[in-house]
Amino acid sequence: MQLVIGNKNYSSWSLRPWLGMKVAGIKFDEVAHDLYAPNALAERLQFSPSAKVPVLIDGDIHIWDSLAIAEYLAERYPAAKLWPQDIVARAYARSVCAEMHAGFSALRSTCPMDIRQKHPVVMTPALQADIDRVLAIWHDCRSRFTGHGEFLFGHFSWVDAFFAPVVTRFVTYGITVPAPLDLYMNAVLALPAMQEWMADAQAESSVAA
Amino acid sequence: MQLVIGNKNYSSWSLRPWLGMKVAGIKFDEVAHDLYAPNALAERLQFSPSAKVPVLIDGDIHIWDSLAIAEYLAERYPAAKLWPQDIVARAYARSVCAEMHAGFSALRSTCPMDIRQKHPVVMTPALQADIDRVLAIWHDCRSRFTGHGEFLFGHFSWVDAFFAPVVTRFVTYGITVPAPLDLYMNAVLALPAMQEWMADAQAESSVAA
Ligand SMILES: N[C@@H](CCC(=O)N[C@@H](CS)C(=O)NCC(=O)O)C(=O)O
Ligand SMILES: N[C@@H](CCC(=O)N[C@@H](CS)C(=O)NCC(=O)O)C(=O)O
Repeated sequence: MQLVIGNKNYSSWSLRPWLGMKVAGIKFDEVAHDLYAPNALAERLQFSPSAKVPVLIDGDIHIWDSLAIAEYLAERYPAAKLWPQDIVARAYARSVCAEMHAGFSALRSTCPMDIRQKHPVVMTPALQADIDRVLAIWHDCRSRFTGHGEFLFGHFSWVDAFFAPVVTRFVTYGITVPAPLDLYMNAVLALPAMQEWMADAQAESSVAA
Repeated sequence: MQLVIGNKNYSSWSLRPWLGMKVAGIKFDEVAHDLYAPNALAERLQFSPSAKVPVLIDGDIHIWDSLAIAEYLAERYPAAKLWPQDIVARAYARSVCAEMHAGFSALRSTCPMDIRQKHPVVMTPALQADIDRVLAIWHDCRSRFTGHGEFLFGHFSWVDAFFAPVVTRFVTYGITVPAPLDLYMNAVLALPAMQEWMADAQAESSVAA
């Protein structure tokens, strides 16, 4: 199984399946794709019908979207429990991941992932609304599903993988969160796989066009 | 089980789960929410944490995103075969639905769903690229997965539900598609459930703000 990913400093969509697979111990070969290389688009079209990364390649199967990869892996590796086992929790988890997938456009456009850097935040009402919604989700998960665990549904799940790029954005743009939600951010940042991804991002030399 | 939906003329996200459930014969109570009523936002916040519709309510479970609803129903009603049964086809189907969920922003913003009306299309390179990508997906499904069926994966699946709002947009904005893809559009438009939705849209009186 191969996972094609973009530059670790920038590719927020790539971080999600990569982190989920690493934390779950699912073995894969990592294929690096430089989004900013001169012939990047032509290269991506070789393996990705949408010309986007990440792409999971498993034999004949090409999956070119992070949420579709999440569902595929949850089905193929049920023991990894990447979705919460309880049906109420799982419905909530999927709602949150799908909401993240289709929404948060202000957060995405104003605060693109840029792990190596610190930037001042340019606050707008739309960005503040996105941040407030993130905090409401974290708060709600903690009061309903977290229990004594460190992650939003106790143990690590796809929801944490989908919020990991938000966590790095909050760090990059100096967006502080009220206690105890800072503990959640710290738990994500302390994951060995997350440390590995961030160290690799530091070591990259490609700069976004 | 209740499905809260927005105005049938406008709410493209609501059409997806509604159509899937109707075609699959999953019983539900339909709850109409007028997105353009004066107190609409406050009302939505009563049942939808993201303040968006559609929302599926099944006892304690609230699911507030169309793709999360799709996964929930596929899990709960496996006999309805709302995802293709073959693993390769299912991976493709999920990639396409998730791509639709996160992308096609030019198509969405330039050609909002408006079933009752006809509008001239204002073509831009970004819109043309989105249309070309839709046609490429339909073509690819037809050559790989459609077989002798009428729908993209032979029988009706979530993929057809996710493309149904695209079909109505192509009609509204006079975007013509090359044969034989017009046959696919006709198959979607001819579904009795689709006819019912479009007739209801005609009968609505609320107008988008
Ligand atoms: N919905 C897709 C989005 C993927 C995406 O936008 N990837 C970016 C890199 S982070 C990309 O490939 N951009 C290149 C392009 O837009 O052509 C997913 O979840 O995987
Ligand atoms: N990702 C969501 C999007 C839902 C959505 O944007 N719904 C629109 C109506 S079609 C809405 O509720 N808009 C009200 C608002 O944005 O506050 C889904 O798939 O259900």
